[in-house]
Amino acid sequence: MYEEKDLSRRKFLKSGILAAGALAVGSSIFNTTKVVEAVETTPTPAPCDSNCEIPSFPYPYAHLDAEKAKLDGYAGYGKSKCSYGAFEAIIGQLGDKVGYPYTMVPTQVLGWGGTGGGGWATLCGALIGAATAINYTMEKKDADKVVSELFGWYCDHSFPEFAPAAGKALEYDGVMEKSVAGSPLCHVSVSNWCDASGLKAESKARSERCARVTADVAAKTVELLNQFHSKTFKAVYKNESVEDCMMCHGKGHSLENTRGLMDCDQCHTNVEPDNLVEHIKRSWDIKD
Amino acid sequence: MYEEKDLSRRKFLKSGILAAGALAVGSSIFNTTKVVEAVETTPTPAPCDSNCEIPSFPYPYAHLDAEKAKLDGYAGYGKSKCSYGAFEAIIGQLGDKVGYPYTMVPTQVLGWGGTGGGGWATLCGALIGAATAINYTMEKKDADKVVSELFGWYCDHSFPEFAPAAGKALEYDGVMEKSVAGSPLCHVSVSNWCDASGLKAESKARSERCARVTADVAAKTVELLNQFHSKTFKAVYKNESVEDCMMCHGKGHSLENTRGLMDCDQCHTNVEPDNLVEHIKRSWDIKD
Repeated sequence: MYEEKDLSRRKFLKSGILAAGALAVGSSIFNTTKVVEAVETTPTPAPCDSNCEIPSFPYPYAHLDAEKAKLDGYAGYGKSKCSYGAFEAIIGQLGDKVGYPYTMVPTQVLGWGGTGGGGWATLCGALIGAATAINYTMEKKDADKVVSELFGWYCDHSFPEFAPAAGKALEYDGVMEKSVAGSPLCHVSVSNWCDASGLKAESKARSERCARVTADVAAKTVELLNQFHSKTFKAVYKNESVEDCMMCHGKGHSLENTRGLMDCDQCHTNVEPDNLVEHIKRSWDIKD
Repeated sequence: MYEEKDLSRRKFLKSGILAAGALAVGSSIFNTTKVVEAVETTPTPAPCDSNCEIPSFPYPYAHLDAEKAKLDGYAGYGKSKCSYGAFEAIIGQLGDKVGYPYTMVPTQVLGWGGTGGGGWATLCGALIGAATAINYTMEKKDADKVVSELFGWYCDHSFPEFAPAAGKALEYDGVMEKSVAGSPLCHVSVSNWCDASGLKAESKARSERCARVTADVAAKTVELLNQFHSKTFKAVYKNESVEDCMMCHGKGHSLENTRGLMDCDQCHTNVEPDNLVEHIKRSWDIKD
């Protein structure tokens, strides 16, 4: 990836030679004004306009530092919430280590993911930002696997684990309760944390919690990206409860009337594991 | 935005002048090999490396064609599913009309959103792609409003409305049942369509349905973007059922233990509108 920078230096040298050449012959074969204008504009950074080569996709990867991603994710939350925070933590560090083309990515475009998408509390914004960053470094077929593993970790992991240095908290410096989100959805993740902490959903404490979750998600994403790009990534997430349901409702099975990996009995409360047999008997009208 | 292209043409003219100048004086003041190399490399599109100016954010907007967005969204689904399809439909058309910097956006990075995020069926991928495209053209505070309106439309609208020309369907050319998603979540949207159509969640018909939903989402996004950028956008979405719940559970109210705009009683089936009074009485231990 550093070849890009070397190439750019070579290009600048060439421009210098060309400008000097143009200046040298300016009075003889060119209109002087034009040549002076050309010489003056040569050293100015040029906008990357439609003459530019489109960077090839996926973008190159460099091994990232998970500890730095935590700090950057936390700071990014302070600037523009969770989705931007997680995205900027990854893309910003890739910009530092790889340079172009990451330096051209406007990380503000993931701002919309805060509060789970325009205030709707759907997919956790930190996951939206992290998943988009993942996909910059690999094709969709691979990103699907890494993103799925990240979502699975998010559901089962007790967080926030990250804690800022003493006196450096963004919004709340009290005891920070951990909770298990049980879902990749902001609505469930925040509600479960409110239950665990007894604190309010729009409090400074909840905002602090989400800033720390952003740090944890950014660090986990770096861990998975480093694994993938060093060929040591292995998908380990399983949800046996969902697999049980999908034995009838999933792909290739008798009903095949839904899809996904979110915990079924979180919403389908009449189908808890302990009454699954009853559910099947009801569904198939099986008498005792 | 067309100034970008004019500027690029002017820059190309200058390069031509410089190259010609270098060539003209090559034999006198330069090593001929260097000059020939310079002349040969001049017309080659240069990579936009770290010497380039970072485009300012948000990117410029041009009035878009909703009918073209439908066709592009549908075709994009065929290439890389819903999230890429909706994103490419907007960013691709902006690339045609505005040019740079949209021409530098690798639209494949939204591939991960297909199937609601790595196969999890969380936020509908077409909404993930559309929301990211929206945010390219405006700041987060504005994107939040437009994205929320798009999600609201998605929940209430009966789709797919788009139908390809006869014989041009991607995967399924039969009768296409419409349904109301009732949620921005892929899991609910697909399940409701399976109920309405009696067809399977992983069938070619469902994939065709999602391709057409992608077309509808891309077109609605263009409608909202055109309204926003012509200062005629007005948020109209309301969910009174959610507002009722948030009178206790929402920001600034007695419980404030959750957040979001997704329909509450879709999952909280013990709190249907017709037993809300009972729910409140139970919650507050109010006797008859």
